[in-house]
Amino acid sequence: MRTRPLKVALLGCGVVGSEVARIMTTHADDLAARIGAPVELAGVAVRRPSKVREGIDPALITTDATALVQRGDIDVVVEVIGGIEPARALITTAFENGASVVSANKALLAEDGAALHAAAEKYGRDLYYEAAVAGAIPLVRPLRESLAGDKVNRVLGIVNGTTNFILDKMDTSGAGYSEALDEATALGYAEADPTADVEGFDAAAKAAILAGIAFHTRVKIGDVHREGITEVTAADIASARRMGCTVKLLAICERASDGASVTARVHPAMIPLSHPLASVREAYNAVFVEAEAAGQLMFYGPGAGGSPTASAVLGDLVAVCRNKLGESTGPGESAYTRLPVSPMGEVVTRYHISLDVADKPGVLAQVATVFAEQGVSIDTVRQQGKDGEASLVVVTHRAPDAALSGTVEALRKLDTVRGVASIMRVEGE
Amino acid sequence: MRTRPLKVALLGCGVVGSEVARIMTTHADDLAARIGAPVELAGVAVRRPSKVREGIDPALITTDATALVQRGDIDVVVEVIGGIEPARALITTAFENGASVVSANKALLAEDGAALHAAAEKYGRDLYYEAAVAGAIPLVRPLRESLAGDKVNRVLGIVNGTTNFILDKMDTSGAGYSEALDEATALGYAEADPTADVEGFDAAAKAAILAGIAFHTRVKIGDVHREGITEVTAADIASARRMGCTVKLLAICERASDGASVTARVHPAMIPLSHPLASVREAYNAVFVEAEAAGQLMFYGPGAGGSPTASAVLGDLVAVCRNKLGESTGPGESAYTRLPVSPMGEVVTRYHISLDVADKPGVLAQVATVFAEQGVSIDTVRQQGKDGEASLVVVTHRAPDAALSGTVEALRKLDTVRGVASIMRVEGE
Repeated sequence: MRTRPLKVALLGCGVVGSEVARIMTTHADDLAARIGAPVELAGVAVRRPSKVREGIDPALITTDATALVQRGDIDVVVEVIGGIEPARALITTAFENGASVVSANKALLAEDGAALHAAAEKYGRDLYYEAAVAGAIPLVRPLRESLAGDKVNRVLGIVNGTTNFILDKMDTSGAGYSEALDEATALGYAEADPTADVEGFDAAAKAAILAGIAFHTRVKIGDVHREGITEVTAADIASARRMGCTVKLLAICERASDGASVTARVHPAMIPLSHPLASVREAYNAVFVEAEAAGQLMFYGPGAGGSPTASAVLGDLVAVCRNKLGESTGPGESAYTRLPVSPMGEVVTRYHISLDVADKPGVLAQVATVFAEQGVSIDTVRQQGKDGEASLVVVTHRAPDAALSGTVEALRKLDTVRGVASIMRVEGE
Repeated sequence: MRTRPLKVALLGCGVVGSEVARIMTTHADDLAARIGAPVELAGVAVRRPSKVREGIDPALITTDATALVQRGDIDVVVEVIGGIEPARALITTAFENGASVVSANKALLAEDGAALHAAAEKYGRDLYYEAAVAGAIPLVRPLRESLAGDKVNRVLGIVNGTTNFILDKMDTSGAGYSEALDEATALGYAEADPTADVEGFDAAAKAAILAGIAFHTRVKIGDVHREGITEVTAADIASARRMGCTVKLLAICERASDGASVTARVHPAMIPLSHPLASVREAYNAVFVEAEAAGQLMFYGPGAGGSPTASAVLGDLVAVCRNKLGESTGPGESAYTRLPVSPMGEVVTRYHISLDVADKPGVLAQVATVFAEQGVSIDTVRQQGKDGEASLVVVTHRAPDAALSGTVEALRKLDTVRGVASIMRVEGE
């Protein structure tokens, strides 16, 4: 074993960074044995240098992250600060100055992954980011490496713990969205500003990364159709229950049936209670991968949190350090298929539509005509009347999303339709 | 991209090998793009050369596997013949002659993995074997690489599809073991000689491989406590049902609580219906991995079959080819912890014991005394009487397996105990 240590610079020392530093210290011998050389924490860039950081030598703390990555003696930079800048500039500077990079930064990778990969390749460095998607669950490596000889056709999963916690609470307790969000915030599952989670930005970034790797193409967060969970109501959840379903925020990446394009989307959807994803509770994540030869695989585990994310970071750190020692690099970006990303309108899906209608003869016929005109075939209709008002719950067969949203548009214009109470896609059947 | 192809020799062209050859042809462009060079099937060693093999150039077929791996121009040998010899000699010869090896051979790796790894290292070659454990499910790579920065404490799972199919049939249809085995054989889930599966040899080999990788030590198949499913009765399954459980053949690898040793075992066990493994149906596999930082991860998918196994082989093939091009090797054996493997007697577990006893006063007191003498604490007792005969079902708390089997021994000697109807361990609680 080499005795000269590999030097690691840690950018960010919050929930994940502090756990990475802690494990690097407590498990130093194991890491050294697995890498073939000791690893040494050479510097930690933080915003608040005065904060007490247990177990970290204060001499390592700096507020000048740029100077740290420019030192020239750093072998690996671990970036866990998140956000676009200064993370992007720091990673690029790290590559220029001889370091490989392990990052947990889903937003940056989903926004500018191609440029970062190009920079890594230009300088002959590694860029690893298992922690950017689904915390501790190995997904990036299985897709990039284990399935490298297979053809992935679909990735479908729950990749955001906060929203799963909220939807699970709504489902089990009958609570409304605000109430469930409050509980998630109180328990630390949701941040003070929950926008990135509840509006689906976090899941969309992960979907972009997964789609890119799975289909060997480039997908940016802007290519991902995104709907959050803020408009999911207790009534939607109750309606799902009546259908033998529950509501989950799903990230879905699909190869078109003709193979010539891909789609990526994040939205709440009803899935049958019998589907394995229906039983993913609290803040857990789970992802299905469907590949031509492998069939259907599922990966399940804690999708966030300091320790699980640190586990993923450290797995990458070991790999990148081994590569450094072997003077090689791991697999870089694989985007050779250059498949275009189709818009949401071309996605084939199913709708569950709940309508408030006048309780009089002929309404169903009118509604059915609208569906027929849009070329959307109806699977089931349930009609409930009370005091001159009635509700009509329609579940469609599979149709292009554009035709389905066109149908909803047309339904809104009917005199007899007082309102569209809810629209939700149905998946996993 | 390099234009000179990497040459692959395929040893074995059965269910898996023919699928590997097929995908290498049909997906040649994808494989080339992902590897960075084309791969060419340079030879296929078979036992029966006269058999028609669709899509394979007859000129590539040979019965002389040794000559094939000795050619000197082979970059990667794919070994899917199974068994100890001639596979072992062929793999070693391949290393000597410049090739890296991708193998699906669980029996050989569990018997002699250390020597094979040493040979690979000596000659600077790769030895990859994702396909040896749980078919298409990425497990070897996640354990070797994704969790390389974490401390795995437990691996627990269903790793044999044949036995899971049989137990699932027994559970859902009430069939006995023989009847369920017949169905499995008729449907192609069980081989004509099902010994390797039903006696737990296959699962034990996988447990040895998983334990070795998970705990960075050496575990051979002979170190694995092994019990098959041939003695599981319809009554056992019914008894499990009454407890809210089902019966699964589990492979369990554990680090002792003091961290100083490990255990590996394969046996049928009752697990609660609420446990995710309880819902693994038919021939599917699923494995839980518990790691210190990552928490609990689950991997699920098809554990056998030509296509799924080929997917795993091809993923390894791509990795090994990339390494070849980069003049590097992937991670080799990691067995630095040198942890001893403790015998089954030291495993802490729970028993479900069903006794036929005389239906008279004092029997329960006698039985309870035996448990107390052996230091085994009783969780629940259920007593059922009929016509002077009675049955007593005892579920214990956790205790060393030696104490539990000692208890059963002592119970058999009691006059009032007519027989021990069944003994089964209880897991997953």
